[in-house]
Amino acid sequence: HTYTFAGDGCLMEGISHEACSLAGTLGLGKLILFYDDNGISIDGPLDKWYTDDTPKRFEAYGWQVISNVDGHDAEAIKKAVIAAKAETSKPTLIQCKTVIGFGAPNLAGSEKTHGAPLGDAEIAATKQQLNWPHPAFEVPNDIYGAWNAVEKGQTHHKEWQQLFDEYAKQFPELASEFSRRIQGELPEQFEQLFKQHIQKSNTEAESIATRKAFNKSLSATQADLPELLGGSADLTGSNLTWSQESKAITREDADGNYIYYGVREFAMTAIMNGITLHGGFIPYGGTFLVFSDYARNAVRLAALMKQRSILIYTHDSIGLGEDGPTHQPVEHVPMLRMTPNMSLWRPCDTVETAVAWESAIARHDGPTSLVLTRQTVPHQERTNEQIESIKRGGYILKDCTNNPEAIIIATGSEVSLAVEAWQKLTDEGLSVRVVSMPSTDKFEQQDQTYRDSVLPPNVKTRVAVEAAAADYWYKYVGLDGKVIAMTSFGESAPYKEIYQHLGITVDAIVAAVNSINSRSTK
Amino acid sequence: HTYTFAGDGCLMEGISHEACSLAGTLGLGKLILFYDDNGISIDGPLDKWYTDDTPKRFEAYGWQVISNVDGHDAEAIKKAVIAAKAETSKPTLIQCKTVIGFGAPNLAGSEKTHGAPLGDAEIAATKQQLNWPHPAFEVPNDIYGAWNAVEKGQTHHKEWQQLFDEYAKQFPELASEFSRRIQGELPEQFEQLFKQHIQKSNTEAESIATRKAFNKSLSATQADLPELLGGSADLTGSNLTWSQESKAITREDADGNYIYYGVREFAMTAIMNGITLHGGFIPYGGTFLVFSDYARNAVRLAALMKQRSILIYTHDSIGLGEDGPTHQPVEHVPMLRMTPNMSLWRPCDTVETAVAWESAIARHDGPTSLVLTRQTVPHQERTNEQIESIKRGGYILKDCTNNPEAIIIATGSEVSLAVEAWQKLTDEGLSVRVVSMPSTDKFEQQDQTYRDSVLPPNVKTRVAVEAAAADYWYKYVGLDGKVIAMTSFGESAPYKEIYQHLGITVDAIVAAVNSINSRSTK
Repeated sequence: HTYTFAGDGCLMEGISHEACSLAGTLGLGKLILFYDDNGISIDGPLDKWYTDDTPKRFEAYGWQVISNVDGHDAEAIKKAVIAAKAETSKPTLIQCKTVIGFGAPNLAGSEKTHGAPLGDAEIAATKQQLNWPHPAFEVPNDIYGAWNAVEKGQTHHKEWQQLFDEYAKQFPELASEFSRRIQGELPEQFEQLFKQHIQKSNTEAESIATRKAFNKSLSATQADLPELLGGSADLTGSNLTWSQESKAITREDADGNYIYYGVREFAMTAIMNGITLHGGFIPYGGTFLVFSDYARNAVRLAALMKQRSILIYTHDSIGLGEDGPTHQPVEHVPMLRMTPNMSLWRPCDTVETAVAWESAIARHDGPTSLVLTRQTVPHQERTNEQIESIKRGGYILKDCTNNPEAIIIATGSEVSLAVEAWQKLTDEGLSVRVVSMPSTDKFEQQDQTYRDSVLPPNVKTRVAVEAAAADYWYKYVGLDGKVIAMTSFGESAPYKEIYQHLGITVDAIVAAVNSINSRSTK
Repeated sequence: HTYTFAGDGCLMEGISHEACSLAGTLGLGKLILFYDDNGISIDGPLDKWYTDDTPKRFEAYGWQVISNVDGHDAEAIKKAVIAAKAETSKPTLIQCKTVIGFGAPNLAGSEKTHGAPLGDAEIAATKQQLNWPHPAFEVPNDIYGAWNAVEKGQTHHKEWQQLFDEYAKQFPELASEFSRRIQGELPEQFEQLFKQHIQKSNTEAESIATRKAFNKSLSATQADLPELLGGSADLTGSNLTWSQESKAITREDADGNYIYYGVREFAMTAIMNGITLHGGFIPYGGTFLVFSDYARNAVRLAALMKQRSILIYTHDSIGLGEDGPTHQPVEHVPMLRMTPNMSLWRPCDTVETAVAWESAIARHDGPTSLVLTRQTVPHQERTNEQIESIKRGGYILKDCTNNPEAIIIATGSEVSLAVEAWQKLTDEGLSVRVVSMPSTDKFEQQDQTYRDSVLPPNVKTRVAVEAAAADYWYKYVGLDGKVIAMTSFGESAPYKEIYQHLGITVDAIVAAVNSINSRSTK
């Protein structure tokens, strides 16, 4: 059983609705939620801002509800827990009626006990009222003994270990597979699997949307990675998160590997955090990139808790077209890049997408965002050495024979624009380099020698191109460079027209390179 | 009455809980919500991911619920609306049972009708089934006539105008005040009010937290700005959003100017959007900066819809101290700066805070984020000319007699570190300038001449200091500059220790300036 706790504040937050509604639908009979119902939040008594009939609300979610339990009565709680465990087809809410600051003669029941210390006088009075004569931080032996679960825990663990050892003798392969997954280790054939898949992607050289490229990578690798646990916030057919290996988890049949999260981006991302913290699975979940907004807090916590969540963000820019600015991300890519410990990939074709997927799965110490297009992008030709360099996050995709006079840096759907501009400028006689930079965080982890070989410090004619907020890229192009990117919200139109209208074009890149170059050679 | 509409997807989202729970508590009797209950979302029939008893859920919120209305029967809906209007003390949910794609013989009831066109054959079949012989985009005259409300609307408007004109004759001052507020114009004395308040702040020269400075600005100006409508997501005592002019809006008494939003950051921000779209009020609402994550989507929509929402974000960095990295914003300040049409101020003392508050209120075409410290910051001395320059977003706070050899750019709580570093470097004989940059968006709206006078392009020794994600500042310091800022999550400790631990210190600024300078003079 999983014991969870929530106060009035938690139950006011929207995520409590998303998560508890889904828990009811899935009939999570092992979930027990203690509701610390003390009628107080930080601003004071709740009657002015929170008057839900919470037991009724949870009944509406299909939960078992045990109401009006005295939260200060251990026996009453025990009884409720037994009843909760007895109901195996529904999660249970135990409404614990409590008094905040219980025992403090002057402050009990007041919001003042939430964050601030009681103060010496009230602490003394509380100890007297509770008949607690012991000094601070001293636990009397009889109480320590009653609560000390070390021996009990050791016994339980020993029993479990014996059971597992016997299982391992009888089923050595299953036991070793279980241990592998629980420890978060990848299967032995992992590298080989991806080597083949990446080579195949390169050979097939398909020009498709990177969301489709992601689906191809998923389909090609999922059979060998049974720890993958997918899902989407009601956009399965758009995120393309479903493969031939996918099977839905339902109330009736938990033996699946795909969660239909419903329209619940925040709960999805938070549940993925819970799954990775539990271990044994690598969760991936899809939504449109702009809807990552709804889940921001859980995205940040995945990074802070160093959890291997894989966030599939499709429809990644103005390139989604007609749905317009409400659906067109602008600030989201740099926002994710600036979240500490978040890895982000914005691949430009099937080959980079395959490498991004491998990188996300292989990462042990944090989440990865895969930022994918709705629209078709062309395949880029690469040598084997270039393919090998993709995992470094940034590499030379197109180059010149001399030292470069200008560098164009691009990601994702804008790489093909950069390559076209490179062709034009090369034809004009300029020595130009194109750097594809699908993952700035991976690139920044490379040593200085490699980074300088890709972006020689003496080359100041630099143009960055990305259909996202411009500001981020000055880090790479400096005060002398130019950034062809978004400085406003998008528009509703077929996507090629929006690119034209907002000036993210081959001609704009060419003009930017030439304008810097003419300035610097004046 | 306000008529609103929600589908299954809307009611799965967390914000539906936050907003509808508060609507129930406040007894919003004029709110009518039509629930388009068609049992389908994009991934298909809902039984696998959404099985709430929604009528029961809304009863738990204290709503009147009218269940099982045939959503395709106009008479049944009319009857429900009449019943909804008759209940004046509660909002009403009208559960409309509908069929998605109604009338399409082969696709009705299927999620396939959500986003994709029906196709020519199915359109023809649908028209036949619905007995609709008219070509596309042609509305028959009898139907057009029955739905044309132009005359009716004109009559209503005329009646209202006559009423208002009579009111204006009887109560000219009240009528003109009403018109002023509805048009979003500021009172005549607005500039004078702030001129005095800013001068007073400068004279008093207090060293206090900028959240306290905000409260002083609010208290000094609210009596003259009755259109201000405040609130906090259950952090009133921390955000300091309450003044002596504040009065709570409750179920019993709507005649107030402060909403206790509860622990509902997303609903708060969305409700503020609704209030500004309605007009007549300027809403300001407080939470901790890190909790802006919960409200990201509504923050973005405020910017996209160009609405005058004022977001009070306190506890703005590692400077909040002991609560630790879950509560310490890192990426949030640049994320808000990169949101198109968001104005952001991170003031360094009482005087800059007063200017920021004036700027937020005066802004007609978009939201403003006020990013404020928990901790005390020192007052900075300024000439009248400098005070006048604050509104330009960036200005010279400390300077040298010669042309500067180095520029230190800082915001908010880090301005005092920059000033201390300036003193040390000046004592060492370097010609250094400190630029205080409370609002990069306002600075970027200044003409090139002003910007170049503050940041002369030939000065490449530039250091930016801000207790937020570093990446943003390369835009100002370039490839040759240095940024003293956050490149990781924060830590839990007294805030001065965290600044030391993470290297955001006077010594680090001095060292950064010297290291660039020695490089460039080699």
